[in-house]
Amino acid sequence: MNEKLFSNPLPIGDVRVTGHFWKDLMETARTKVIPYQWEALNDRIEGAAPSYCMRNFHAAAGKIKAEFGGCVFQDSDVAKWLEAVAYSLMWHPDPELEKIADGAIDDIVAAQQPDGYLDTYYILNGLDKRFTNLKDHHELYCLGHMIEGAVAYYQATGKDKLLKALERYVDCVDEHIGPEEGKLHGYPGHEIIEMALVRLYEVTKKEKYLRLAKYFIDERGKSPLYFEEETKKHGNKFWWDESSFKYHYYQAGEPVRDQQYAIGHAVRAVYLYSGVADVARRTGDETLYETCRRLWNDTVNRQMYVTGGIGSSQYGEAFTFDYDLPNDTIYAETCASIGLVFFAIRMLGIEPRGEYGDVMERALYNGIISGMSQDGRSFFYVNPLEVIPESSEKDHLRHHVKVQRQKWFGCACCPPNLARLLCSMGAYAYGVNGDTLYTHLYLEGNTKAALASGEVSFDVKTNYPWDGDVRISIQSAPSAPVTLALRIPGWCRSYTLKVAGETITPDVRDGYAYITRAFAPGEEIELVMEMPVRLVRANPRVREDIGKVAVMRGPVVYCLEEADNGDNLARVYVDANTSFTEHFDADFFGGAMILESKGEVLSDDGWDADTLYQYNSEAAPTYTAKALRWIPYYLWANRDPGEMTVWVRVK
Amino acid sequence: MNEKLFSNPLPIGDVRVTGHFWKDLMETARTKVIPYQWEALNDRIEGAAPSYCMRNFHAAAGKIKAEFGGCVFQDSDVAKWLEAVAYSLMWHPDPELEKIADGAIDDIVAAQQPDGYLDTYYILNGLDKRFTNLKDHHELYCLGHMIEGAVAYYQATGKDKLLKALERYVDCVDEHIGPEEGKLHGYPGHEIIEMALVRLYEVTKKEKYLRLAKYFIDERGKSPLYFEEETKKHGNKFWWDESSFKYHYYQAGEPVRDQQYAIGHAVRAVYLYSGVADVARRTGDETLYETCRRLWNDTVNRQMYVTGGIGSSQYGEAFTFDYDLPNDTIYAETCASIGLVFFAIRMLGIEPRGEYGDVMERALYNGIISGMSQDGRSFFYVNPLEVIPESSEKDHLRHHVKVQRQKWFGCACCPPNLARLLCSMGAYAYGVNGDTLYTHLYLEGNTKAALASGEVSFDVKTNYPWDGDVRISIQSAPSAPVTLALRIPGWCRSYTLKVAGETITPDVRDGYAYITRAFAPGEEIELVMEMPVRLVRANPRVREDIGKVAVMRGPVVYCLEEADNGDNLARVYVDANTSFTEHFDADFFGGAMILESKGEVLSDDGWDADTLYQYNSEAAPTYTAKALRWIPYYLWANRDPGEMTVWVRVK
Repeated sequence: MNEKLFSNPLPIGDVRVTGHFWKDLMETARTKVIPYQWEALNDRIEGAAPSYCMRNFHAAAGKIKAEFGGCVFQDSDVAKWLEAVAYSLMWHPDPELEKIADGAIDDIVAAQQPDGYLDTYYILNGLDKRFTNLKDHHELYCLGHMIEGAVAYYQATGKDKLLKALERYVDCVDEHIGPEEGKLHGYPGHEIIEMALVRLYEVTKKEKYLRLAKYFIDERGKSPLYFEEETKKHGNKFWWDESSFKYHYYQAGEPVRDQQYAIGHAVRAVYLYSGVADVARRTGDETLYETCRRLWNDTVNRQMYVTGGIGSSQYGEAFTFDYDLPNDTIYAETCASIGLVFFAIRMLGIEPRGEYGDVMERALYNGIISGMSQDGRSFFYVNPLEVIPESSEKDHLRHHVKVQRQKWFGCACCPPNLARLLCSMGAYAYGVNGDTLYTHLYLEGNTKAALASGEVSFDVKTNYPWDGDVRISIQSAPSAPVTLALRIPGWCRSYTLKVAGETITPDVRDGYAYITRAFAPGEEIELVMEMPVRLVRANPRVREDIGKVAVMRGPVVYCLEEADNGDNLARVYVDANTSFTEHFDADFFGGAMILESKGEVLSDDGWDADTLYQYNSEAAPTYTAKALRWIPYYLWANRDPGEMTVWVRVK
Repeated sequence: MNEKLFSNPLPIGDVRVTGHFWKDLMETARTKVIPYQWEALNDRIEGAAPSYCMRNFHAAAGKIKAEFGGCVFQDSDVAKWLEAVAYSLMWHPDPELEKIADGAIDDIVAAQQPDGYLDTYYILNGLDKRFTNLKDHHELYCLGHMIEGAVAYYQATGKDKLLKALERYVDCVDEHIGPEEGKLHGYPGHEIIEMALVRLYEVTKKEKYLRLAKYFIDERGKSPLYFEEETKKHGNKFWWDESSFKYHYYQAGEPVRDQQYAIGHAVRAVYLYSGVADVARRTGDETLYETCRRLWNDTVNRQMYVTGGIGSSQYGEAFTFDYDLPNDTIYAETCASIGLVFFAIRMLGIEPRGEYGDVMERALYNGIISGMSQDGRSFFYVNPLEVIPESSEKDHLRHHVKVQRQKWFGCACCPPNLARLLCSMGAYAYGVNGDTLYTHLYLEGNTKAALASGEVSFDVKTNYPWDGDVRISIQSAPSAPVTLALRIPGWCRSYTLKVAGETITPDVRDGYAYITRAFAPGEEIELVMEMPVRLVRANPRVREDIGKVAVMRGPVVYCLEEADNGDNLARVYVDANTSFTEHFDADFFGGAMILESKGEVLSDDGWDADTLYQYNSEAAPTYTAKALRWIPYYLWANRDPGEMTVWVRVK
C-alpha cells in the first residue's frame, strides 16, 4: 500500500522521563493505579463492587463454575491493565509485575475457544449468540483493547503468547465479518479495533489486519444500515430511538467519508477518528485523510472546551453541536480527552503541524490529568468547568457532575485508560522522520532517537509547564547534519532560541522551529519561551462563555476554587487588564505555580434573601474588591469539596 | 371552627369582563378550547391521540365493552372541562353547551358504583385494587377535580346531580381512609382534593369535608411514611429512588407543618399549599397559616421566575433549590403558574397584602397566558425564558423546551387548566370584607358587589396592562360610607388618585390604597399609574441572571424574539441607561404595546468559525450597534420559530 506516513513516535523505552511533573504522575500510575487495578480485576477490593473480570476468564476456561459478571465489556478491563503494565515495563522493568501479567495472559488464553473466539460474555452466555449484537455488545471493542494490550506486551517483553492468541481471534472474526457474501457486513458499535488492527499490522506486517481495519471504516454507516438490520433480525434494543442523533451515536448515521461533524458518543468518535487516521497514514487514502482533517477541525475548533475536554452532554456521553459548550451540564469524559490525544498523535504522524501538538498538550495538562486525584486513588469521569455543589446534589441535570472524584467503579473505564496513557507518555513526545527529530512535548528526561544518519541522544532540562525554559544538551549525535524540529506552542508569543550559546532565528513552519546542524556532543539548544499569564476569550459563538475569560499560563488552564476564594464564584469579576502575581508552591500537590490577582465580587448589598427582582434604577449592582487565588485546573477537587469555575466574568 | 377568613371573592357572574385583553382570552377559551376539548374527550379529533376519557365512563357504566384507555388520571380531563364550562355559563349562558354538560354528567354518574366509588381506572381494572396506590394512581386527584367541577357546575346552574354523586364518592373515600383504626392512613400523591374538599364544605356546609381536607394535610409526611408502607405492601414502584428529593417529590418527605422549602413536583406543591391555605382560613389554624407564609415566601421570593414561572427542572417537573433559576433548562409549567394563582388568591382571602396580588398579576400576564397560542389551538407546557432552537433539537437536556406550542395531547393537562382559569378570571379580581371591596386586578368591565351596607356597582374603564389609567365609575352604592381598596401594584412607583375630580392622598397599607366614602352614583375614582419601561435585575444569588436585565413595563415582561431581532440573542447587550420608545400595535395578536431600544451585539470580528479560543489582548470583544424590538413575553412563539430570550446582557 501507499503509505502517507510522515513520522513515527520513538519507542517508549527510549524516552526516559525524569522531570517531576510527568514522572510523578507516571509513578502514581505505576505504583498505585496498576496494583490497585489488579486487585480490582480479581475482586479483592473491600467495599468496591466486584469486577468479575478475571473470574469471567476462569469460568470461561472451565476452571471454575460461575456465571458471567460485570458489564458486557468487562474483558477490556484486563486488556487495558495489561497495556499499562506493558508500557510501565518499558521504563521500569519489574520481574514480579511481569510474572503477574504472564499469569493473567495464561488465564486469558486458557479461555480461548477452538476456533479462536475469545470473549467471555458469549463463552459463558452461549456462543450461538455471538456476533448478534455488534452494535451494543462490545465484542469487537474488547478485542480491540486485547490487541492493544497484546501488542504493547509483545513490544515490552518480546513475549507473543497473547499476540498469537489474538491473531487467531482476529482470524475467527475475519471468517464471520467482512465484505464477502455469507459474512456479516458489520462493524463495531464502540470503535477502537480500527486502530488496534493497524497496530497489529505494524508488528506482524500482515496486511489482512490493515484490510480488516479499513473494511470496518468503509462499511460503517453504509445504507442499508447494518445496525438497523441487526436490530431487527435479532430483536435487539435500540437505545437512541428518542435521541436526535439516532445511529449517529455510533458514528454510523452516514458513511465515514461523508461525515462533516463530530457527533455521538465522544469517546467512540475520537477512537474512530484515530483509527481512520491510522488507516489513512498506512494506506495513503486521501479522502480518509480529508475526513480526518475535517473531523479534527470540527472537534477541536468548534466542540472542544478550553481544557481539551470534549463531549458537551451527559446524554449519550456525546457531542451536541458546534459551539455548544456548557460548563456546568458538560460531560467532558477523561477517556474522551485521552482519545483526542490518540487522534492528535496520529495526525502528527501524518503531518507535522503544531496545532496537533497544541491540542495534545491542552488535553494532557488540563482535562486528562484532572481525571485523577493526586494520590491516584479516585477518579473523575466527568471533568466540568463549573461546579456548584448544591446543583450537583439537587439538580438532576447536573447530578453526573461530581464534586469529588469517585473511587474505582465496578465497570472502570477512565482509570485504566489514564494508567495506560500515563505509562506511555514517552510515545507522545517525539516523532522521527529520516534525519529530523520532532519534539512535540517538552518533558524533562533523557532520550535517544535513531535518525537516518545515526543515533542522537540528549538530555532535556525544563520546569515545563511552570516555566518556558527548555535546555537540550546533546550527548551524542551523528557527524552529518540532522534537524531538530521544536514545537513552538500556540500559546507562545515570544521566545528566544540559542544553539551552542548563539541566538538564532530558526526556520519556523506550521508551528515547528527547524534547526539543522551537525550537532556536537555537549552542545546545548536553549529555547526560552515567555510564559506570562494570559486572559483567554472564547469565540462569541460560544454562548456560555460570553462576557467571561479563562486564565491560562503556558498550556495550563487555571481555575478558582471555593477552598481559596469562598463560594459564589459566579459572582466574581476580573478586570480585562488585571495583572497577576505568580509563585511556585512546592508543597501544593507535588508543586504548582499559583496565581494571584485582584478581582471583584458582585455584592448583595441592597438585596435581602427574600427579594428576587428589583428595578435596576433602584438596585444597580455594586461590587466589592476581592483578592483571588488561582490554581491549575487539573488540581481542583483535591481539597474540601466546593465550588469551582474556569470561566470568570470580566469587566 | 374558628375561621381566619378575611375576604371572599365575588361570584364570577357578578364580574362582567368586557376589556379586550382578558375578554379576548376568555372568549378564546370559551369558543375554541372548550368545544375542542369536548371533541377530544370523545376521541373525535382527527390526527390526535385518543383521550378515551368519555369512553372510559361509558365502559365503566357498562354501556359499552372497552378496556380502560389513557392515563391513570384520565377522568380528571372531563372534570376540568366541566369546571371550565360551568364558569363560562356564569358569564355567557349557553343552553346548548349546558345540555352537553348535563349529558356528560349523566355519563359520569352512570358509572358510579353502589358504594359511591367513581374512578373509571379501577372500575375497569378491578375494584379490589382501588386505594392500593394513592401515591401514584391519582384516584384522589381525579376525585378532587371532579369535586371542583361539580361545585362550579352547581354554582353555575343550580344542578346538583354531580355534586350529590361526588358527595357519595367522598363518603366512600371517608370510609376507607382516615385516622380511625382499620382505615388507610393515606393521602393523595397528587394534591388538589384538599382545596376541592374545602369548596365542597363551603357549598354543603358539611364539616366532615373540611375535616377530611385537614386530615390529608396533617397526615402527609408523617412517620412511618404511608407512601413507603404502601409501596412495600403492594409492591408498587417508587419512581424517585435515585432522585435527591425522594418522597419530597410528593411534598411528603416530612410533615407539612415542618416544611421549610418549596420542593418536589411544582404543580403538586402549589396545589397543596392552596389547600393548606384553604384549611388555614377555614379553621384559623395558625401553624398551618405560618406554613403557608413560609412556603409562599420560599416559592415566590427564592424560586420564581420573573414571568411567574415556577419549577426549575424538567426532572420531576420540580423545584430544585433556592435561587436556582436556569432560563434554558427550565420547566415552568403553565399549570404550576396557574396553581400559584390559586395559592395567591387564597392568601389574599386571609390577608390583604399587595404582594399576593403582585405575584398573581405577574403569573397571569406572563407565564400563564404564554401557555396558549393566540388562536387557542396550541399550548406550551414548558414556558422557557431562553430558547435556542438548535439546543432544543440537539441537546437532550433542553429537548423538553419546545420552540413551538404543541397541539392538544392525549393526556392533556395544561390546556383545560388554562380554560378553567380564564373562564373564571372574575374570581381573581375582587375580594369583599364587610364594607370593604378590594380590587386585586384591574379588568375593564362591569361589577356588582354585595357589601355589608348594601350593593355597590361600578364600571371599570382601563387599557391595563398597556397603560396604568383606571377609571372606576360608580353606578350605585349604599348611602353609608364604604371602602374601596385599590391594589397599588408593586411595579408602580408613581401614581395619582382622584375621587370625584379631586386628588386625594389615600391611606396605603400593605399595597392597598383605602378610600372610604359615601360614594354617589356617577362619581368617578381615577387611578393613574405611571408605567414607564423599566430594566429589572435579579437577586445576585440567581447565578443565571448575573450581568443581565429583564425589560418590564407595568406587569408585562418583554422578550426579544428572532423574528424581530435575528438570531444570536445571547450576544445582545443593552445599556443600563438605555431608553425605550413604545407604540401600541393594534394588529399584533390582538393588540400589544411594542418597545424599541438601542442595543449592541457582540461581534465576531476577529474570530473565524474555526477558532475557539484567543487571548483577550489579541481578540478583545467588539460590539456593533443594533436596533432592538421587544414584544410581550406572553406573545412569543406566535410567528416563525426561532430564538427567544427574556434576560439580556447589560453593559
